[in-house]
Amino acid sequence: MQNIVEDGVEFDARPLAEALVGARGADIADFLDEYDAEQAAAIVAHLPLEEAVKAFDQPGIDNAEEIVALLPRPTAAAMLDAMSADRTAGLFRWLEEPARSELLAQLPADMRETVERLLAYPEESAGSLMTTEFVAVPSTWTIAQVLHHIRMVERTRETVYAVYVTDPVRNTLVQAVTLRRLLSGDPHASVLSAAPERKPVTIGPYEQRDEATRLISKYDLLAIPVIDPRGHMLGIVTVDDVIDAMVERQTAEVQRFGGVEALDEPYLRIGFGEMIRKRAGWLCALFLSEMLTASAMQGFESELEKAIVLTLFIPLIMSSGGNSGSQATSLIIRALALREVDLRDWWRVALREIPSGAILGAILGMIGILRITLWQQIGFYDYGPHWPLVALTVGAALVGIVTFGSFVGAMLPFALRRLGFDPATASAPFVATLVDVTGLVIYFGVAAVILHGTLL
Amino acid sequence: MQNIVEDGVEFDARPLAEALVGARGADIADFLDEYDAEQAAAIVAHLPLEEAVKAFDQPGIDNAEEIVALLPRPTAAAMLDAMSADRTAGLFRWLEEPARSELLAQLPADMRETVERLLAYPEESAGSLMTTEFVAVPSTWTIAQVLHHIRMVERTRETVYAVYVTDPVRNTLVQAVTLRRLLSGDPHASVLSAAPERKPVTIGPYEQRDEATRLISKYDLLAIPVIDPRGHMLGIVTVDDVIDAMVERQTAEVQRFGGVEALDEPYLRIGFGEMIRKRAGWLCALFLSEMLTASAMQGFESELEKAIVLTLFIPLIMSSGGNSGSQATSLIIRALALREVDLRDWWRVALREIPSGAILGAILGMIGILRITLWQQIGFYDYGPHWPLVALTVGAALVGIVTFGSFVGAMLPFALRRLGFDPATASAPFVATLVDVTGLVIYFGVAAVILHGTLL
Repeated sequence: MQNIVEDGVEFDARPLAEALVGARGADIADFLDEYDAEQAAAIVAHLPLEEAVKAFDQPGIDNAEEIVALLPRPTAAAMLDAMSADRTAGLFRWLEEPARSELLAQLPADMRETVERLLAYPEESAGSLMTTEFVAVPSTWTIAQVLHHIRMVERTRETVYAVYVTDPVRNTLVQAVTLRRLLSGDPHASVLSAAPERKPVTIGPYEQRDEATRLISKYDLLAIPVIDPRGHMLGIVTVDDVIDAMVERQTAEVQRFGGVEALDEPYLRIGFGEMIRKRAGWLCALFLSEMLTASAMQGFESELEKAIVLTLFIPLIMSSGGNSGSQATSLIIRALALREVDLRDWWRVALREIPSGAILGAILGMIGILRITLWQQIGFYDYGPHWPLVALTVGAALVGIVTFGSFVGAMLPFALRRLGFDPATASAPFVATLVDVTGLVIYFGVAAVILHGTLL
Repeated sequence: MQNIVEDGVEFDARPLAEALVGARGADIADFLDEYDAEQAAAIVAHLPLEEAVKAFDQPGIDNAEEIVALLPRPTAAAMLDAMSADRTAGLFRWLEEPARSELLAQLPADMRETVERLLAYPEESAGSLMTTEFVAVPSTWTIAQVLHHIRMVERTRETVYAVYVTDPVRNTLVQAVTLRRLLSGDPHASVLSAAPERKPVTIGPYEQRDEATRLISKYDLLAIPVIDPRGHMLGIVTVDDVIDAMVERQTAEVQRFGGVEALDEPYLRIGFGEMIRKRAGWLCALFLSEMLTASAMQGFESELEKAIVLTLFIPLIMSSGGNSGSQATSLIIRALALREVDLRDWWRVALREIPSGAILGAILGMIGILRITLWQQIGFYDYGPHWPLVALTVGAALVGIVTFGSFVGAMLPFALRRLGFDPATASAPFVATLVDVTGLVIYFGVAAVILHGTLL
């Protein structure tokens, strides 16, 4: 690849590449991120193969697929072949045509087959997260044979998470043995003598990625074997992939709770148009729903004309409903994610949220009444001759709205899961919008009762 | 411990304990969680020591400290001594008096010293997360000596994350070697011959817990050594502790973004009063700030009286400001957490958010104008003779408010970090409240300009 001339200055990639030799993969990745894809590709083209592989084996390069597409095809193919299969497959998920087909065709047959098999798993599945490189030995081997195998055959592997022992006939997974246990065992004994009493925890390739995270986190595993329904081992999901998936998931969860589609790219790197698109969708949907508030207000026009004083508290009351709803939603999203509550616990949650909401609403209601009373008595503002009734209206409406907000906010994640969506789709703005229209109805309803015959 | 009589039925812990023998620690923990603390303590008292240790070595038992306090002191002390030191210290953090002092006094001197040292580290530090149990060998040893040591001395350890090689004189950390590399090395060569070229990644005990997470995640480590300023090794933070910390952090982040103080306990388990307290604080603070909207509305009373039609769109317009702010805040909270942006990038973010907000506001404004025009033309509602000006007011106000919301929402996490707070303290309700008062001012300001001489 020739050097790039930009702004009249030739970009010389070679010395940059030479300075990177021997650095950690994650640090090379960070370094490449400082450059645009063309410059990064020029640097990578000058790197020794093993250094490039180290860097691309990290999930940290933001525009990895663009860089790969810009590399000379044979360089890219050699790198993709030498990388761990799960990372290679991950890159192919994002690669665009024609690079995708051309590179796939240039991979050696076995790697191509592995990549195609991994690509067949859905994006959020355990299968899509697994690596097909693991140490498996037949259960007929002795410990000495296994150790010899690791010494000789597996010497390129930096970490041996566990040795997986398979049935020599049916080829099914029998046990998982740690290196430490192999070391302490009698070399002439069967490898199974070093195995723990219990069967290893496993996962199916089509199970959710989050389930792999949960199992690895719960049982403190370094890797979890992925097996097909007949018990054959397909690969392992390792703890470092799980950590990457957790970080990604956490970002998506916070972004969605804030009412944005998950960006999938760093904030300063995502295209401006792409970001507008990811934000406009929800914003417009919420705006359209929120238009119902205008319709509701139109319905209460005669009340508004008679008692303008009521309008003063509309923002205050509506925001309180939204805030309490947002609190309840955030609590239940996490409780569902951590499996602290289950779909069938919805009524237990409802039975907690309704009294919680009523108490919280009463607290706010009292503050509201106090505020109106104070302002009236001190003379900051005149709420008219019926000010005690206005204060009562505001207080009572707050109890109703905060209770309703807490209830709706808590039920929304359950409803979403019941309908097959991710409960984390329930965002704070979503809840606020749901609560707003009803909040207005509650407010004017309470006003109609309390102020009937005086202001209304 | 005698059996417990409850509701007239004797609770027989022994058969339950017997059924648990041989189960995985995490599963025993789950099982104990189904019972109240007294019942769980009765079950634990009947468990063989090693089974109890397995379960309590898990972070999964919700009321572990209550159970420990209820156990006979000698049983509890034996268990705390046999557990990994970081978990024991973790339990002591939560134990109440007098159990805390009594149990600490009953621990063997070396364990007590270790626990006291660990407890001295602040709760959010890497030191508080570390375990003091790790394999360290002097650099004068051969590979064969190290392997023999692991076989003989370290045989109780389930996982050897790495072997840490120290300077025999100064006792400082020199290298970290994986078991796999030791296995492939020449047994008679120095242990250093199996070490990688690079120094291990390390962390100081007073650094943030999140930094340990970041380093382990970035460099795909299974454990990170914690060293003091002179290079002596104090312990290791292991990947499973990091995963637990990540889950905890994620829950706190979502809850805080929803406007609740982090619960620290499962939703269905936390006391009702405690939950009210964690929610009421923020809710009241937001309510008090939001009262400024009432004051603002009072200031615009004469405009409201002249043009009631303006009130119809107040909820719609204010919620749009809050929603766009919530989007921007969620994006920046994560971008800061992932270090995609830095404190000094605030102006770059501002330069993205202002045009984004203007475009998003223009989209919503156009929808708003369309809605008013349609309703007027179809005859759903009569916005009066000046309806085109009303529509223009709503549209123009939306541009202003959404731009302002995006800007404030994006700047809030920066401001919080600048002031020394966690940027994740910025919740969706917090942003909405910030934006609401200004939103009203923008709306009535725009109305004053556009409707001057007609409605106002």
